[in-house]
Amino acid sequence: MQISKEQIQLVNKKVEAGHESQFNFLAQTLDSKGVDVNAVVKKLADFQVAIPSWALGAGGTRFGRFSYFGEPSNLEQKINDVGIIHSLTQTAGAISLHIPWDVPEDYNAIKELAAANHLVFDAVNSNTFQDQKDAKESYKYGSLSNVNKGVRDQAVQHNIDVVEIGEKLGSKSLTVWLADGSNFPGQNNFQTAFQYTEDSLKEIYTSLPEDWKMFIEYKPYEPNFYSTVIQDWGTSFMLANACGDKAYTLVDLGHHLPNTNIEQIVATLMMKGKLGGFHFNDSKYGDDDSTVGSVKPYSLFLIFNELVYGMKNNPQNPYPAWMIDASHNIKDPLEDLIQSLEAIQEAYAKALLVDQKALKEAQLANDVVVCQELLQEAYRTDVRPLLREARLKSGGALHPITAYRSLQVRESLIEERGKYAVASGL
Amino acid sequence: MQISKEQIQLVNKKVEAGHESQFNFLAQTLDSKGVDVNAVVKKLADFQVAIPSWALGAGGTRFGRFSYFGEPSNLEQKINDVGIIHSLTQTAGAISLHIPWDVPEDYNAIKELAAANHLVFDAVNSNTFQDQKDAKESYKYGSLSNVNKGVRDQAVQHNIDVVEIGEKLGSKSLTVWLADGSNFPGQNNFQTAFQYTEDSLKEIYTSLPEDWKMFIEYKPYEPNFYSTVIQDWGTSFMLANACGDKAYTLVDLGHHLPNTNIEQIVATLMMKGKLGGFHFNDSKYGDDDSTVGSVKPYSLFLIFNELVYGMKNNPQNPYPAWMIDASHNIKDPLEDLIQSLEAIQEAYAKALLVDQKALKEAQLANDVVVCQELLQEAYRTDVRPLLREARLKSGGALHPITAYRSLQVRESLIEERGKYAVASGL
Amino acid sequence: MQISKEQIQLVNKKVEAGHESQFNFLAQTLDSKGVDVNAVVKKLADFQVAIPSWALGAGGTRFGRFSYFGEPSNLEQKINDVGIIHSLTQTAGAISLHIPWDVPEDYNAIKELAAANHLVFDAVNSNTFQDQKDAKESYKYGSLSNVNKGVRDQAVQHNIDVVEIGEKLGSKSLTVWLADGSNFPGQNNFQTAFQYTEDSLKEIYTSLPEDWKMFIEYKPYEPNFYSTVIQDWGTSFMLANACGDKAYTLVDLGHHLPNTNIEQIVATLMMKGKLGGFHFNDSKYGDDDSTVGSVKPYSLFLIFNELVYGMKNNPQNPYPAWMIDASHNIKDPLEDLIQSLEAIQEAYAKALLVDQKALKEAQLANDVVVCQELLQEAYRTDVRPLLREARLKSGGALHPITAYRSLQVRESLIEERGKYAVASGL
Amino acid sequence: MQISKEQIQLVNKKVEAGHESQFNFLAQTLDSKGVDVNAVVKKLADFQVAIPSWALGAGGTRFGRFSYFGEPSNLEQKINDVGIIHSLTQTAGAISLHIPWDVPEDYNAIKELAAANHLVFDAVNSNTFQDQKDAKESYKYGSLSNVNKGVRDQAVQHNIDVVEIGEKLGSKSLTVWLADGSNFPGQNNFQTAFQYTEDSLKEIYTSLPEDWKMFIEYKPYEPNFYSTVIQDWGTSFMLANACGDKAYTLVDLGHHLPNTNIEQIVATLMMKGKLGGFHFNDSKYGDDDSTVGSVKPYSLFLIFNELVYGMKNNPQNPYPAWMIDASHNIKDPLEDLIQSLEAIQEAYAKALLVDQKALKEAQLANDVVVCQELLQEAYRTDVRPLLREARLKSGGALHPITAYRSLQVRESLIEERGKYAVASGL
Repeated sequence: MQISKEQIQLVNKKVEAGHESQFNFLAQTLDSKGVDVNAVVKKLADFQVAIPSWALGAGGTRFGRFSYFGEPSNLEQKINDVGIIHSLTQTAGAISLHIPWDVPEDYNAIKELAAANHLVFDAVNSNTFQDQKDAKESYKYGSLSNVNKGVRDQAVQHNIDVVEIGEKLGSKSLTVWLADGSNFPGQNNFQTAFQYTEDSLKEIYTSLPEDWKMFIEYKPYEPNFYSTVIQDWGTSFMLANACGDKAYTLVDLGHHLPNTNIEQIVATLMMKGKLGGFHFNDSKYGDDDSTVGSVKPYSLFLIFNELVYGMKNNPQNPYPAWMIDASHNIKDPLEDLIQSLEAIQEAYAKALLVDQKALKEAQLANDVVVCQELLQEAYRTDVRPLLREARLKSGGALHPITAYRSLQVRESLIEERGKYAVASGL
Repeated sequence: MQISKEQIQLVNKKVEAGHESQFNFLAQTLDSKGVDVNAVVKKLADFQVAIPSWALGAGGTRFGRFSYFGEPSNLEQKINDVGIIHSLTQTAGAISLHIPWDVPEDYNAIKELAAANHLVFDAVNSNTFQDQKDAKESYKYGSLSNVNKGVRDQAVQHNIDVVEIGEKLGSKSLTVWLADGSNFPGQNNFQTAFQYTEDSLKEIYTSLPEDWKMFIEYKPYEPNFYSTVIQDWGTSFMLANACGDKAYTLVDLGHHLPNTNIEQIVATLMMKGKLGGFHFNDSKYGDDDSTVGSVKPYSLFLIFNELVYGMKNNPQNPYPAWMIDASHNIKDPLEDLIQSLEAIQEAYAKALLVDQKALKEAQLANDVVVCQELLQEAYRTDVRPLLREARLKSGGALHPITAYRSLQVRESLIEERGKYAVASGL
Repeated sequence: MQISKEQIQLVNKKVEAGHESQFNFLAQTLDSKGVDVNAVVKKLADFQVAIPSWALGAGGTRFGRFSYFGEPSNLEQKINDVGIIHSLTQTAGAISLHIPWDVPEDYNAIKELAAANHLVFDAVNSNTFQDQKDAKESYKYGSLSNVNKGVRDQAVQHNIDVVEIGEKLGSKSLTVWLADGSNFPGQNNFQTAFQYTEDSLKEIYTSLPEDWKMFIEYKPYEPNFYSTVIQDWGTSFMLANACGDKAYTLVDLGHHLPNTNIEQIVATLMMKGKLGGFHFNDSKYGDDDSTVGSVKPYSLFLIFNELVYGMKNNPQNPYPAWMIDASHNIKDPLEDLIQSLEAIQEAYAKALLVDQKALKEAQLANDVVVCQELLQEAYRTDVRPLLREARLKSGGALHPITAYRSLQVRESLIEERGKYAVASGL
Repeated sequence: MQISKEQIQLVNKKVEAGHESQFNFLAQTLDSKGVDVNAVVKKLADFQVAIPSWALGAGGTRFGRFSYFGEPSNLEQKINDVGIIHSLTQTAGAISLHIPWDVPEDYNAIKELAAANHLVFDAVNSNTFQDQKDAKESYKYGSLSNVNKGVRDQAVQHNIDVVEIGEKLGSKSLTVWLADGSNFPGQNNFQTAFQYTEDSLKEIYTSLPEDWKMFIEYKPYEPNFYSTVIQDWGTSFMLANACGDKAYTLVDLGHHLPNTNIEQIVATLMMKGKLGGFHFNDSKYGDDDSTVGSVKPYSLFLIFNELVYGMKNNPQNPYPAWMIDASHNIKDPLEDLIQSLEAIQEAYAKALLVDQKALKEAQLANDVVVCQELLQEAYRTDVRPLLREARLKSGGALHPITAYRSLQVRESLIEERGKYAVASGL
């Protein structure tokens, strides 16, 4: 199933007048405050977030999983799903593959299919947290940090293989998320585990093509419940430095202890030129992988405030790789992803509205009240007309969820794939 | 110092045209969605929040305190300060006294002063967490829960005294916050401490005038760092039930463990008719007592969503007593309170915009995506024009902080009181 | 595979002399402090903890599961496994079934098998958090709290069925753990969800045999990540009260927000006669289901201190049902359970050593230093000789893990069952 | 007041026989397991922990403070108090001064007094979190990170002054704890604040004598409740690296977010040769500053396990500076400190008993069960006889708290100083 420009235009037609009026009024207001509205809309239109291939089917918890009808059961269908999202939102112009779940059989066909859907291949993700059928070694007690050299070698080689697959598709970065750690005090020697991890990462790094980046993710706990080898940004940063210039830290919003000030971590990493990638989601308790912006939208705004600042003021930092990493336990995954994209764009738009000059002055004057007012001024603005304008200009839907439903996308997918298709992967 | 209606009108004048245009545009948009805008504006205008007398000076931490210039040093000045806030915001029509910090000398004069400032006396607060000079007994090891009957008696009597003072001023409720607990395992017998607390509260309850309410606050920790006698809503609820119909639970937003779902507690208490009072503030870590809405505004909205629902659907629950309980460590306390009031009104306004009918339908259909959309639709709306309209109609300032500054309120207070006045109390 | 008394005696022989010397020295020391050592040893010997049927295979996380060799694949083998643990520890004299995973085919045979293993059937557990094949209704959006009456009815009926199965086996209690809740703000109406849950529980309660108890478990989050209907002890307590005298709260150690003072909850519930059951495990982050005592052994001791106090001083509270509810992701499940049993007995023994009389005196004198010293005096004592003596007297192994290994239990199970048997259930 | 060796011997006499029997029995048991008991006892005797000068009076919270009778009101009396603790425990052979609270008037006299009490001067602590009377600049909005150069200069100079004072007393290290941060989003520019902090620290570092060390403390929150400039070990580590070889990270046990794996941080820092200092305390919620070992003794043991490992295997790391940093809100401060010292020695002793060789083997074999058993074997051992033996050999009291009370130390101090003396400082 594919959505044509014409279908979207038809759906938009009914609400376009309303949008125009809302947008014009807002544009005028913002303009009177000195905001360059066109520039903001252009930035929103340019902002693209990768969809991971494993996010297109229903997620689950250790207590079970409730399937969704019409899930994609192969890579082609996954690309198709991302294409649908991108048609509607014009914000999801990339897909991020997970190996070995998504190894292409025919590379050319896959690349053509992606191109037809206006998608590029973003970071490729390795998997050393699960055992693959017929694998020689098991990751039960760790992969890159394993005390057993045979296991480490297998895990290193898998990462090298993933890079090769990525190269064939045009990816330019590898994301390494390690579940390695321990469930009980005493199980791991922390220093040895760290050292093995560093050595393994360096080995992978050596095989990295010249124009690639390596992203090192961190996470405090889960699936290990006592310690995790790369438990925080400090550890990831240390490892990235040990590897070299092409190695970076990757921040996943759900991978922090309760109450962590994530925006400060973002600022520090960008200042040091080491923020490579970003995984969006939301959470109330742990790594809940909830829809972006569904729980703590102000936090997301504050993080974007640092991202916008860094993208402007930190030339030492590369443009980060953006990806949604959420789990869809009870919603239609495509609708859920559309909601996430909307929340990301909203936070980005609001961050773009912060009056940076006035903020700097208030900070220099220690005028704390005004500092707060300035952030809230931007945050309290209803920026949805800006998002809609950006989508409209790019050929997307003014109201993507409404369009998705009125175009009966899910129904078509079920018809094509059957109710009980099951997504490969997790 | 007092602010006249005329002064406010003069300040408003310059921004009134702009406001009118913003308000009309929003009103039209909302109207087209079926919102009764006038009704919303009226509810906002009617909503009044008490200011506690101890919040008018600078707060501090255990590491020290930085004074603010021109702090009020007696009850008259405190009333004056609340009067200023109320003039500007038309939302702070009540003051909540803390005994023994605010015992009036001349009751009639104090009542007249309050009336002149259009203020009523809301809940009175007792203090059994600090020793008073020349007190016979010490609260070092607890008050209402103390193993020593003499201490319990003194604490009970103090609460009875507070009620008497409140009666003379027209208050109708007593808030009991107990710091009682223990710092080390073994220090307290939990069961005995609970029993003594229940007995003491019942004794106070007996002395309560017929038309009064008693609010029982809960808090998980601080100033005790191992256990707190009334550690959670369940304990407070149990105690309120044991006392009787006039006893209620009081929710302070900062008094919860990390990640607590506070809105669900609010819903449960209202359903059971036991939510008596509400203390507003915000926090990132513990009982930070930060400006309302400065850290987690979406949480505040979700809580107001339950409050609005309960006020409409739970006749068994009395209209709650609202109060701001924040600490102003580095901001001008009056400006800080104005920011808090704005955030409260904002959350309330957004909650009033939730399409309850559509929400119920979506809930019945398990349409989780639409449930989320409906809350976000309300939340994402920029409701500031509604707040301004409500203030305008009541004679308040369109932009209270701006007005406060352009009227040079703090400068006048310093002139009147001197730079180094120190607020009585904490 | 079964372990005979003789096999155990043989293994014990080698270390019996060492044990005797350790025990005698400790007994003498404790005796000189006024401890009735025999009484303590008898209490330890009498203390029996149920093993849940689902804990005998490897557990997992949402990221996958690593199987263990020789897992039991039917109810008979599960009973066999518990029998092995009980032979060695003499502490695991009960099994707790999970329906529908463990529906017996031949009740008499199952009862005889249990009896032969010296096991009784403790609380039966219902499951309404997963869909069963061919079930008419889905629990995707809740069970006892579902907005759809058909789903609620199915869930109620399932619980009634579970009770019937339990009756045939001699169980005397039903444990209800509800995953019900919501993943996103707005999804659930808190008040309705609570009310439906109360109604459903009351319906189940009505079908409860006269001599049965119903245990209502609570949990703050997971598998739902925004709200859980029975989120805390206060909610569970309220529901138990609404149902009646035979309904109780069940405490699972892992089901609390960070930093909760669990021992105080235990004390409150016992004082009110409402602590019905107890699930042991340990955790560092969330509901980690780690081996009991592996992370926070002092916490466990403090909880046992309240349990011991309550069992002595609260005749209004029934003797609680004890169960281990841990997950065994990387250890041999039987070894892991043996470690848990050891940790439970250790905490119980230490709690029994607390000088309650001296503690009470110190509490009355507010001698906080001595209160702490008294708890630490008990906790710092090495009580392992007491545990060994209790096992020795009951015919168990002095060192269960060592015995388990020297008797090559796992090897025998693998031989019997094959390497790749997979436990039924989760 | 001073305690003589003879007084202590007299008190010990009554319990010496009992101790000897306990010690011999334990020594024999440990010896049979291959432990070099004498070596362990010697290590315990050698282990010395500094007492900070501010810990000798009662602490408090933002809700107030309850004084203790007989508090020291000048530096001489503080040294005297530490001398008393050291006499009894033989573990507190150092004092750590806080400037400007403890600026000596007569350096020689102070040094002689310390020597007479067998005390050395450990790290000196600067204070830029409070304003000093007549200070030109205020630290209300930060010190080393302040946007105002004048404030930064004053704070830098203060640290340089502190070093000079320390030099005159024989200290060899400076501890910098920065309260700097922000209370509200927007208040601080994270990148600027970090950069200023780095610059200021480098300036202080430049003035550091050749044989000195600088310790950089981190803390996630309090007294600032939105952000803290040095929020975690990663930030501190980065700053220490930027300064140079003499700069190190200092770990305070209470300065971590909920559930942080502190022992892993310790291991990482020692591996990198950057763990300079250590502040002991305990906590259940935040930076509670409770008595060491009173809440999470197993955590303390796990941390000591890493410290012992690092002191043996990481020659790249200097011997860390140990200090107790607790607050004594309701206990006699001296008794509280004695309890802390006992808990530290206990954790250290248990860590020394871990069979490192067997642990390494079990780790290499991924025998998780045995790894856990080995740590628990050490932890479950009652090591108090070893601590007593170490004290006995050094001339300390077998039971310091009992001795403190029987020698009526507090009564003598009250007689000397009066009831209402108030400790200088916080």
